[in-house]
Amino acid sequence: MALSQTDIASRLDWVAVDWGTSNLRLWAMDANDAILARAESDLGLNKITDGGFETVLRDLIAGWLPDHLSQDDRISVIICGMAGAKQGWCEAPYATVPARPETLAAGVVKPVLRQVGLDVHILPGLCQVDDPDVMRGEETQLVGFMADHPDFAGWVCLPGTHSKWARIENGSITGFRTYMSGEVFALLSQQSILRHSMPGADDAQAFESAIRHVAEKQGDLLHCLFGIRASGLVAPNTDTAGAGAATLSGYVIGSEIADIVARLDHSESIALIGDGKLSARYNQALRVHGFDAEIIDAEAATLGGLRRAHTVLTNL
Amino acid sequence: MALSQTDIASRLDWVAVDWGTSNLRLWAMDANDAILARAESDLGLNKITDGGFETVLRDLIAGWLPDHLSQDDRISVIICGMAGAKQGWCEAPYATVPARPETLAAGVVKPVLRQVGLDVHILPGLCQVDDPDVMRGEETQLVGFMADHPDFAGWVCLPGTHSKWARIENGSITGFRTYMSGEVFALLSQQSILRHSMPGADDAQAFESAIRHVAEKQGDLLHCLFGIRASGLVAPNTDTAGAGAATLSGYVIGSEIADIVARLDHSESIALIGDGKLSARYNQALRVHGFDAEIIDAEAATLGGLRRAHTVLTNL
Repeated sequence: MALSQTDIASRLDWVAVDWGTSNLRLWAMDANDAILARAESDLGLNKITDGGFETVLRDLIAGWLPDHLSQDDRISVIICGMAGAKQGWCEAPYATVPARPETLAAGVVKPVLRQVGLDVHILPGLCQVDDPDVMRGEETQLVGFMADHPDFAGWVCLPGTHSKWARIENGSITGFRTYMSGEVFALLSQQSILRHSMPGADDAQAFESAIRHVAEKQGDLLHCLFGIRASGLVAPNTDTAGAGAATLSGYVIGSEIADIVARLDHSESIALIGDGKLSARYNQALRVHGFDAEIIDAEAATLGGLRRAHTVLTNL
Repeated sequence: MALSQTDIASRLDWVAVDWGTSNLRLWAMDANDAILARAESDLGLNKITDGGFETVLRDLIAGWLPDHLSQDDRISVIICGMAGAKQGWCEAPYATVPARPETLAAGVVKPVLRQVGLDVHILPGLCQVDDPDVMRGEETQLVGFMADHPDFAGWVCLPGTHSKWARIENGSITGFRTYMSGEVFALLSQQSILRHSMPGADDAQAFESAIRHVAEKQGDLLHCLFGIRASGLVAPNTDTAGAGAATLSGYVIGSEIADIVARLDHSESIALIGDGKLSARYNQALRVHGFDAEIIDAEAATLGGLRRAHTVLTNL
């Protein structure tokens, strides 16, 4: 049962925020790190004009706060994600791999606020100089995952628009690789000539055929893609002809998976953090290569990482 | 010096047309296959509504025709390209590989015309059922190339939106592979997150670095791409940071070239038919792999193929 505003305000200890490019999510937390309430909004980085971050934040959490905040109130707000980008609220320069959770928490920046009562901390992203790469937000999910899996050694994948594969060892993020799989899928399925070949969105068999096609190195991605169009014209009865979207997804994800599995051996653990349906597809692709991943809830990982940062910052 | 309309009309024997998706080109030809005049228009397939093809054609060549055409006049018009697609003027079903120039010419269709005086032939495209693939228009350029290089054995590349690599042997097109390189480059450079990283369009050194990066299999295309964005954020002084467009072009073309060169040996000849600047880039990429191509003018190849079709059809 949802708590009343009075109950939330009386028990509120800190606020956790994941502020992304296209939306943000917020949690009211008590002193034992339990969730009192949740909120979300589509006011991601893309929709906020100059200086609007503080107003948006205060509007969204107003119902959780005591009626009168004074200069002595310092309710902690811990934010991860694009709010710390150069074009965000206040730039939090990237930490560099290898990075431990404490290193990331120590990299917070505190924007100057117009009103009293809050103490806002924005977490840094993570970068890699050799084989240049960046993330903002996913590092906090990785920290949350590591809190629950202190002895994990292996790779953690965060599928999405810009899919990330991070190597974790001895409680540290040692390196990572980004793949533009989600964005490339979206562009090709909506705006390329392949948009005419996108019926039958969910076909596990066509998806797996495409994964195998890539795994067997039958051709480069740029060639496989055109086959989706061509098979509809010259071989309309084949697997791929009626399941263009699943085949496209299989070629794109298969290309990512084939590249990453070439870099790891079968003794290594893999975990997938993300949306359930997409994670299941990634795991289907991994199984073609003889791997099997543990699937982790994305919200739990994000919140775990924000909790860990809050604990580190409280004890500083 | 340009000929007068009267001279053109008195010497006109046939009309050659390359009717593509976004534009068309036309040539007035005399009985010795010499060019009397040229025309072009942006009325490609995409802009023509139902039934408008004959009107567009007659408008564009009106100045080349004698004043009064009768039922007995049958000026031959030979058309290649998308005019023969299902959504074109009149569908010319694909010929299948292996295909000789005579096979292609024999596959012409003749649309029913509303007015007298012309005899319109639309050439078929070419398809491949095993490893499904299609082309419409490029097969005519290949025929033109083969007319000038009767003993050629090897691969001919036609770079472009949907780049084609065709195998030619014993005067026959035996197979081909399409790569969506040009379309993928356009989508990524204009509509993906990489659009923010596209300064310095022409940097031969950055292009070649990217080609080598792919040739050395340092990573899958989907990963390399994100490096263009990331290097601008974390390593702004590297090669790729100031030359995003050349690097993107190198990754995309490099991916295509690496795939095709794995399928051929160094004894095979390669020819490139197309736009001079793009062909030069493709050849730069081929040289990284130890190949060197002959570069062929695209208009000459198109016209050569249409001439060959006209000769075959005249002698039938």
